[in-house]
Amino acid sequence: MSFHSFIPPRRTLMGPGPSDVYPNVLAALSRPTLGHLDPLFIGMMDELKALLQYAFQTRNPMTLAISAPGSAGMEACFVNLVEPGEKVIVCRNGVFGGRMLENIKRLGAEAVVVDTPWGRAVELDKVKAAISAHPDAKFLAFVHAETSTGALSDAKALCAMAREAGMLSIVDAVTSLGGVPVKVDEWGIDAIYSGSQKCLSCVPGLSPVSFSPAAVEKIKNRRSPVQSWFLDQSLVMGYWEGAGKRSYHHTAPVNALYALHEALVQLHSEGLEQSWQRHRQMHERLAEGLGALGLDFIVPQGERLPQLNTVTIPQGIDDAAVRATLLNDYNLEIGAGLGDFAGKAWRIGLMGYGARRENVTLCLAALAEVLNK
Amino acid sequence: MSFHSFIPPRRTLMGPGPSDVYPNVLAALSRPTLGHLDPLFIGMMDELKALLQYAFQTRNPMTLAISAPGSAGMEACFVNLVEPGEKVIVCRNGVFGGRMLENIKRLGAEAVVVDTPWGRAVELDKVKAAISAHPDAKFLAFVHAETSTGALSDAKALCAMAREAGMLSIVDAVTSLGGVPVKVDEWGIDAIYSGSQKCLSCVPGLSPVSFSPAAVEKIKNRRSPVQSWFLDQSLVMGYWEGAGKRSYHHTAPVNALYALHEALVQLHSEGLEQSWQRHRQMHERLAEGLGALGLDFIVPQGERLPQLNTVTIPQGIDDAAVRATLLNDYNLEIGAGLGDFAGKAWRIGLMGYGARRENVTLCLAALAEVLNK
Repeated sequence: MSFHSFIPPRRTLMGPGPSDVYPNVLAALSRPTLGHLDPLFIGMMDELKALLQYAFQTRNPMTLAISAPGSAGMEACFVNLVEPGEKVIVCRNGVFGGRMLENIKRLGAEAVVVDTPWGRAVELDKVKAAISAHPDAKFLAFVHAETSTGALSDAKALCAMAREAGMLSIVDAVTSLGGVPVKVDEWGIDAIYSGSQKCLSCVPGLSPVSFSPAAVEKIKNRRSPVQSWFLDQSLVMGYWEGAGKRSYHHTAPVNALYALHEALVQLHSEGLEQSWQRHRQMHERLAEGLGALGLDFIVPQGERLPQLNTVTIPQGIDDAAVRATLLNDYNLEIGAGLGDFAGKAWRIGLMGYGARRENVTLCLAALAEVLNK
Repeated sequence: MSFHSFIPPRRTLMGPGPSDVYPNVLAALSRPTLGHLDPLFIGMMDELKALLQYAFQTRNPMTLAISAPGSAGMEACFVNLVEPGEKVIVCRNGVFGGRMLENIKRLGAEAVVVDTPWGRAVELDKVKAAISAHPDAKFLAFVHAETSTGALSDAKALCAMAREAGMLSIVDAVTSLGGVPVKVDEWGIDAIYSGSQKCLSCVPGLSPVSFSPAAVEKIKNRRSPVQSWFLDQSLVMGYWEGAGKRSYHHTAPVNALYALHEALVQLHSEGLEQSWQRHRQMHERLAEGLGALGLDFIVPQGERLPQLNTVTIPQGIDDAAVRATLLNDYNLEIGAGLGDFAGKAWRIGLMGYGARRENVTLCLAALAEVLNK
């Protein structure tokens, strides 16, 4: 057998992520590898922590990037905070709420599921009722931006409910961070995880996380060890902690962390508010164009994610053929439906660097050609 | 606060890993990101699997790269194969055997520890005795190349013992793969994990793994779900499987996988045997030079890893000062001691692309200058 270097084409990535990566981030990725205990690398990690705190709008000292994708970030939050037998109220309005439930089950905790129809924001009344019915629950977990449906839930209100009931909140911000407001300290979020490959426009593979002082306290007072050695945050913090000597836990993904640093430098230089506004503006342009093409949004206005636009595939249209034509003839990727929405929806992402005018225009014009509109 | 792009210097990496990365691998890393379900990316994944099978010398269909560092690869092997209450004989002759033990404990399995002094290969007689004393053990786990000490154990003999006793073998090949012979099928290894950042000379962050048909059978017949959702290989395989439709599990670290593919293309093009020979030759040059400098190897000849040379720090020498001078004045990284060897040993890596003549010469000449020899 003979093998050759793999040379991918340049695609325009407008699916649910990975999103278009900033050119500067790709450049940062290929800089010379340093040792993970090199003082210069450690210095970069300190800056990276400050940048993550900016992105999350938090002063939490326990703010870092898990050396694995968002799913591992989710698992890190659950296995560190929740102990076997503890009760978690988990909101499910798409695939990722279901994945939270899977995490809760596998660690031997008890789940109370609050279901909301797919494509809708988590229903606050139902959550309120669940909290009243289960005052012994220790956690409220929900997905801020459901990547499978394009629905945005009211994280501020949900975290306030959790806090009032003395519960800790666990929030999935994989698709929200950088694209819509995420205010960890102001909203009182206790544990939050995100992904590098959505609105941060970094390459996939890392999961930014942050834990509030109350969450850290909960972790410190565990009765049982965290079931995962790799994700045990008390060990990981020995490496990320700024003061004093860094202790080796696992080999950090050095080059990927350069890339995340660069993506966050870009976000900081643009400014969070400006980034949120740009996502909104591009969404409005796209939404108007999709409407003109006769494509209907699944999520009601007011609950829509600007960065992930889910539309119903019109009757008689061959889902796979349209996506293949866009990919092969236009180098344009849009996302298929996932879970209940497989074959029924397209997911059009406007994430991070991907949320720019030329992408909106290309996507609308290419869709018009392929759909013969 | 103001933030800027991070521009690392070019170091010569001769520690215990990350090793010097092939320039082509850094170039591959920064190629345009594709979607993780893009047919072109899926095609690359098929090639990557074939290349991993070559590196591991196996036909195991379940051969892939975990989307996280070697520690996660270790955890993936243990949590998928071993169920709570099952007995594992674990050999400990350094830090990483101890980490195996930690994994076994955290999943609720029972460990029988076979200790060998640090700096020595795992003692076969002791293992034989443990197997006789514990015929109910289901697994034998050991580290092939102990990164903390530089000792190489006899994987072939250990796996034969396991097989004879009807036990499955779990092998840490983080530092061995690509640097010394690793023959999964010939030796009958059942589960093996490695790291991208050692003798493969890729960037850190990925863990190649392979499972034998017997290991796959064990996983399929589990009574309890795998405690980690992220590392559940039955789910991960739905994405890596070549035939038919790929199902989404987590977002693959696309660019890191380009890099691993490129690193393995390099290994395949050089040839495994040639790579092993180059590591031996460079080791011999280095060993001769270290001897001339009066530096003594910790590991007895015959048990030494060519790719990781551990020497005793001479009395009166300031460990940290020497390493800092090498790093700051020569851009040369050598490794500190780890665990029991902290402050007592240096670890000099000759891994993958790092195992070349100019590195050996630089290291010896720089050490001579710094040690005033």
